[in-house]
Amino acid sequence: MIPYCSICWDDNKVRLLDQRLLPQEEVYLEISDYRDMIEAIRTLTIRGAPAIGVAAAMGAALGALELETEDPEEFRQRFADVCREIAQARPTAVNLFWALQRMQAVAEAHAGESVASLKEHLVHEAQVILKEDETINRHLAQHGRPLIKDGYQVLTHCNTGALATGAYGTALGVLRAAWEAGRRFSVWVDETRPLLQGARLTTWELEKIGIPYTLIPDGAAAALMRQQKVNLVIVGADRIAANGDTANKIGTYSLAVLAKFHGVPFFVAAPLSTFDFALPNGNFIPVEERPAEELIRFRGETVAPAETPVLNLAFDITPKELITGIITERGIAWQPLSSSIKYLKDAKD
Amino acid sequence: MIPYCSICWDDNKVRLLDQRLLPQEEVYLEISDYRDMIEAIRTLTIRGAPAIGVAAAMGAALGALELETEDPEEFRQRFADVCREIAQARPTAVNLFWALQRMQAVAEAHAGESVASLKEHLVHEAQVILKEDETINRHLAQHGRPLIKDGYQVLTHCNTGALATGAYGTALGVLRAAWEAGRRFSVWVDETRPLLQGARLTTWELEKIGIPYTLIPDGAAAALMRQQKVNLVIVGADRIAANGDTANKIGTYSLAVLAKFHGVPFFVAAPLSTFDFALPNGNFIPVEERPAEELIRFRGETVAPAETPVLNLAFDITPKELITGIITERGIAWQPLSSSIKYLKDAKD
Repeated sequence: MIPYCSICWDDNKVRLLDQRLLPQEEVYLEISDYRDMIEAIRTLTIRGAPAIGVAAAMGAALGALELETEDPEEFRQRFADVCREIAQARPTAVNLFWALQRMQAVAEAHAGESVASLKEHLVHEAQVILKEDETINRHLAQHGRPLIKDGYQVLTHCNTGALATGAYGTALGVLRAAWEAGRRFSVWVDETRPLLQGARLTTWELEKIGIPYTLIPDGAAAALMRQQKVNLVIVGADRIAANGDTANKIGTYSLAVLAKFHGVPFFVAAPLSTFDFALPNGNFIPVEERPAEELIRFRGETVAPAETPVLNLAFDITPKELITGIITERGIAWQPLSSSIKYLKDAKD
Repeated sequence: MIPYCSICWDDNKVRLLDQRLLPQEEVYLEISDYRDMIEAIRTLTIRGAPAIGVAAAMGAALGALELETEDPEEFRQRFADVCREIAQARPTAVNLFWALQRMQAVAEAHAGESVASLKEHLVHEAQVILKEDETINRHLAQHGRPLIKDGYQVLTHCNTGALATGAYGTALGVLRAAWEAGRRFSVWVDETRPLLQGARLTTWELEKIGIPYTLIPDGAAAALMRQQKVNLVIVGADRIAANGDTANKIGTYSLAVLAKFHGVPFFVAAPLSTFDFALPNGNFIPVEERPAEELIRFRGETVAPAETPVLNLAFDITPKELITGIITERGIAWQPLSSSIKYLKDAKD
């Protein structure tokens, strides 16, 4: 039913679905050099916070395999350099740093062992992170599932499906779980400028799952809310501060304000690996600014004068007070978010 | 300084700047058949409510010239048919119907005269409508000018410049008048999906006028407002009901809600010909639904799966309570809009 994967480990190489070419072409890349993985993350060949986490871990594993030394201490230092290099790929999705820290913790935990053994542990850990991601997303989806009722018209932004994660999806995973449980509803898909992840990827995934959907320009969401054609908004996240402030694809904050104005519930779906508990609030989340080219050209077609000054912020910050709840693998954090997030963080699985 | 015109009458032909090709190519079309004018309006070769009004009038004049009869009564009937045909071109911009009514009123007023004389009157009237449009826009711009203060960051949507009108512009005309009066400010340009009138046309016009601007995706406006980087929003209109409810390019209502939420003034700039005094409120304004193609493809490039279901509403309705004021050629209608609009309507120039 979902005959694709965004990323997997295959005989000391990584297979990646090139998301830049979707929906026209379904091309898998084989990556064996960690520098190519950095480039894949940077160019959004793979994107979506959980998928970036998996990609970073697998990139680190590739980097480990490439290190030609038998000295465990030298290996450890050079592996740390590899991780630092990968950490530069993109600034906002915290899953990237979270995954790299996990990989480095494995290297530390096995510090006394041979380089061959260290490499084996790291390759294994990257695959564990992928596997866990799917399990986590399925749990998250089950917690969110009851929110989606028969007859609902749900609005979503960007792409949060299996493509954006190791497997299954976050916000789209919730919709998928509801659909698989027999709920019948439809989805408004924001096209999500500038890179059209909604138009290109979410439509493609919903088509495969079989959930009815309608594509709209980002600017149309408000009019649909006014016409009472939106029962619920659900989005993913790239980084969530300890208080619940949420960084997500540009346009998310806009939807949150519009949802508040129209009395529509607004949910975020994200695994705990997307939370940055070190940040007290969203003001501390770094927001990536991407190249002007993304607005000026689309697939080689020029859509604005070549020298147009552009502000291309990849993300915006939605303050906690606009969020009805955050769906995680340990349950839904409801208002007040600060305390419920802390509760879920400290809960045992 | 503005070496282009959207539309002009030239020796019994109409010269049109093909706005579909901007900003890459500046191509003028010569139209001598009124059916080609209908097609030009339908395909957005020319767009913008006031420009559509001028185009409809000139189309009617072309249609009149094409009528091969010497019988004034037959001429009058067939001219009415031509006008009815042109009226089908697009449903929302009321300037189209307003201009056609004016043309038919001229035909009625000279009912006793020869066909040659009627044709002359109609060709003259179309040119009067163009000339008046510029005068009206310049008055409108002078009324709006004081709203734009030094250091302001103004946000606008779609295109409301000389391209959208006979000349000078409405919302962009206000900015131009402020700039020409020495005010120094900058403009956030919403790219305005799906047809990117902001990215393609407003950038191009602001560049020619010399006003600094920055292009943003539509979804970014909210984040900029939150960062207090928007002092004022100004947009045009396609049809305004008697109570002030305003139909304008999809995404306008979204901006109006966001402006209200962030305490940013929200102005509409439109000539009185854009008001439809027969409609008590915005619920009666017909909203055009345009082809799915506009979201699925851009200049031949596919950006979503070919069979994607799409809702492509060209306009949305902003309720009067979200509008700070409506700038017209007779002054600004402030809240409460219903009574101030009535006052301006009944005022003498």
